[in-house]
Amino acid sequence: MTLGTHFILDLEGAPFAALDDERLVHEALVVAVGEMGARVLGVYLHRLEPQGVSGVVVISESHLTIHTWPERGEAAIDLFSCGDPARARDAARRLPEKLSASRFTLREIPRGVPEATEPSL
Amino acid sequence: MTLGTHFILDLEGAPFAALDDERLVHEALVVAVGEMGARVLGVYLHRLEPQGVSGVVVISESHLTIHTWPERGEAAIDLFSCGDPARARDAARRLPEKLSASRFTLREIPRGVPEATEPSL
Repeated sequence: MTLGTHFILDLEGAPFAALDDERLVHEALVVAVGEMGARVLGVYLHRLEPQGVSGVVVISESHLTIHTWPERGEAAIDLFSCGDPARARDAARRLPEKLSASRFTLREIPRGVPEATEPSL
Repeated sequence: MTLGTHFILDLEGAPFAALDDERLVHEALVVAVGEMGARVLGVYLHRLEPQGVSGVVVISESHLTIHTWPERGEAAIDLFSCGDPARARDAARRLPEKLSASRFTLREIPRGVPEATEPSL
C-alpha cells in the first residue's frame, strides 16, 4: 500500500512578473489546495533576492511547494497528496496556467518503500 | 541546465516513538540542512491527530519536507536542493539513521523542463 502520490511539476515560459509576485504565487497555491479538497495548515512564502519566491503550503499529511526563477521563466513545484490522486492531479495540471506558463512537465511518483517481492503461489 | 536535484526518500521500520516525536523530527531536519551547508529560512512542523508529524524546512531555493506514519513505522521525506548534490545526497542518506529506520529507498530526480532535443550536427 502506497503512502500517497507525489506530483513533480516543472514549468517554463512564464512571465518574470508572475513568478516574482509573492501574492500571485500565494493565491495560486492556496486555490490549488482548495481544488484538491484539502485543508491548509500553514502557508510559508519567502521572497528571494534579487528575485524569486520559495514557499510551501503544509496540508494535513500532504504538502505543496514552489521555487521560482523569474529570470529563467521557470518554476519547480511538488505536490505530495495522501488524498484523492485524481483531484490532486487536476489541481496540479491547473497550476501552470495560474502562473501563465507556456509549457510544463508533470511526473507522478508513488510514495512508500516498495513491498519486498513475494514468490507467487 | 537543471534547476536542482530532488531527493525522494522513503523509510520504514522506525519506532513509533521516534516518528511521533516532534522535537526529534525537528532536530533531524535542521541537522540535515546543516550537513548540506545550507541556511534555514523557516521550520514549520504540525503534529497530526491521533499521531504523526507533517513538516517542512524552507531553505533558500530549496526545501526539506517530512510526513510520518508512526503506526506504520514509515516516513516520506523529500529534499529539493539547488546546491551541491553530493552534500545533499549525504545528508539525505543520514536521515533514516536519525529516525532509527531499518530500511529506506532514495531516488533522485533532476528538476526543470527537459531541453527540446536539437538535431545533432
